[in-house]
Amino acid sequence: IGAPLFPKDKIFETTPEGVVMGLAWTSLGGSTLFIECLQVSTAEKGNLQMTGKMGEVMKESAEISYSVARKFLSRASPENNFLEKNIVHLHIPEGAVPKDGPSAGITMVTALLSLAMNKKIEKKLAMTGEVTLTGKVLPVGGIKEKVLAAQRAGVEQVIIPIDNKRDWEELDEQIKENMHVSFASTYDDVYQTVFGSN
Amino acid sequence: IGAPLFPKDKIFETTPEGVVMGLAWTSLGGSTLFIECLQVSTAEKGNLQMTGKMGEVMKESAEISYSVARKFLSRASPENNFLEKNIVHLHIPEGAVPKDGPSAGITMVTALLSLAMNKKIEKKLAMTGEVTLTGKVLPVGGIKEKVLAAQRAGVEQVIIPIDNKRDWEELDEQIKENMHVSFASTYDDVYQTVFGSN
Amino acid sequence: IGAPLFPKDKIFETTPEGVVMGLAWTSLGGSTLFIECLQVSTAEKGNLQMTGKMGEVMKESAEISYSVARKFLSRASPENNFLEKNIVHLHIPEGAVPKDGPSAGITMVTALLSLAMNKKIEKKLAMTGEVTLTGKVLPVGGIKEKVLAAQRAGVEQVIIPIDNKRDWEELDEQIKENMHVSFASTYDDVYQTVFGSN
Repeated sequence: IGAPLFPKDKIFETTPEGVVMGLAWTSLGGSTLFIECLQVSTAEKGNLQMTGKMGEVMKESAEISYSVARKFLSRASPENNFLEKNIVHLHIPEGAVPKDGPSAGITMVTALLSLAMNKKIEKKLAMTGEVTLTGKVLPVGGIKEKVLAAQRAGVEQVIIPIDNKRDWEELDEQIKENMHVSFASTYDDVYQTVFGSN
Repeated sequence: IGAPLFPKDKIFETTPEGVVMGLAWTSLGGSTLFIECLQVSTAEKGNLQMTGKMGEVMKESAEISYSVARKFLSRASPENNFLEKNIVHLHIPEGAVPKDGPSAGITMVTALLSLAMNKKIEKKLAMTGEVTLTGKVLPVGGIKEKVLAAQRAGVEQVIIPIDNKRDWEELDEQIKENMHVSFASTYDDVYQTVFGSN
Repeated sequence: IGAPLFPKDKIFETTPEGVVMGLAWTSLGGSTLFIECLQVSTAEKGNLQMTGKMGEVMKESAEISYSVARKFLSRASPENNFLEKNIVHLHIPEGAVPKDGPSAGITMVTALLSLAMNKKIEKKLAMTGEVTLTGKVLPVGGIKEKVLAAQRAGVEQVIIPIDNKRDWEELDEQIKENMHVSFASTYDDVYQTVFGSN
């Protein structure tokens, strides 16, 4: 009741570990959104809890992202058992706005890894893309609207699925000149762009 | 059946630890409401139980507030393991009145911290604001109606989100003169106002 | 199916520990009802189970009452760990009659304390009132109908919320002359009336 319909298109003044900017697409246009992850407590068996008025598809997407992040971390940093030994809470503000769909997949994986590795994300970076359980990045809708929303929010770099390359090419030159783009075909590509080579 | 439709706009005669006044907004106007927190029992792993005919968004808001309170406490008072080691019950009277929405977020965090730190809250203080998992305070609706309800209840100080500043400025001078306001952009701001610098 | 629509307006011939008479209000008038509590088994961690075709609000009211009873007992009799170490079953006959609402709150707290302290309740006493988690007693509807039902059942003393005092005053003199009333603003007031000063 009375809550603004969409998250404000505004960058976090400081982006803490575990927070990554995603891009959403609605009937009213694109908007930015944030994935927030927080360590809740240590535990015998790590687990994920989630809030943010997510629909079923988005909840499954969060579960997939959690599995991908755990697998990725066990390969990239075998000594890092953060996800195995902590309860992590993932939230997407704003709490009253219904959200759904799989397109925040790579954003959620990145937020979980940012928290687990205790590394902040460049705050002028946003991303969108579905992720599969084995790390493939699948195309999503609304690229034009999402990139426009990113631009409005002051974003300077976006990561989008390789299979959305044609959508990118159809954007106005004015937009493409002021925004760096990275195309991802697997989550490894996202990781390289975000965290660099180890 | 037969229960009054809204909580009485009345200050607790004494505000025990764990109780904080929030502000609600309905189609019939604003009203005050209380968040009550009580320690139920010790436990290997702390947990939150909740009652008060809350809708889904408000239940998630309580979960978020609980995570925020735990994280905040672990930073502000690392030696305080109250929330880690106790079952806490959070209730919002009146039990028959349906309640929903995220705007009691900062009120719930404050009630949990009040209980955990065993510090009472100034009873003429009320607050409203959504909180995100990493502690940002987001704007809420119905500021005018809420502040009027606070005034009727004898409140002398309110905490509202910084992004509701314009709503505050549009209030009648008569109201603003008799009410102290604090604007919060993160939960740290709320904490400073409520508990002062440690 | 086939069960009488409302509990019989009749006092238990003997009131065992754990049983307290409450007062209900329906579209057909007032009626008495009994809260029954029984110790089921010892346990590492005490817990409450409930039956009696209760609606959601009444179930939450039972949870609140259980938390209030535990907290009250830990203060009034710190050496009494009955509720911490037993599974308690709370039932409201008759099992086929749907019941809801928060107004049995103080009755449920009293039944739990009666069981835990092994003290019987005066059988000509009935009560009604919502209880909040920190023990405030909130007003309820149908006072007139409830007191009439109590009178029909042979009750000689009722406990009602202080904020229902006006409803009491509006009753016929004939009723007030034959019924002792106690007004409660917190559960402490109920306790004093029921169990006396320790």
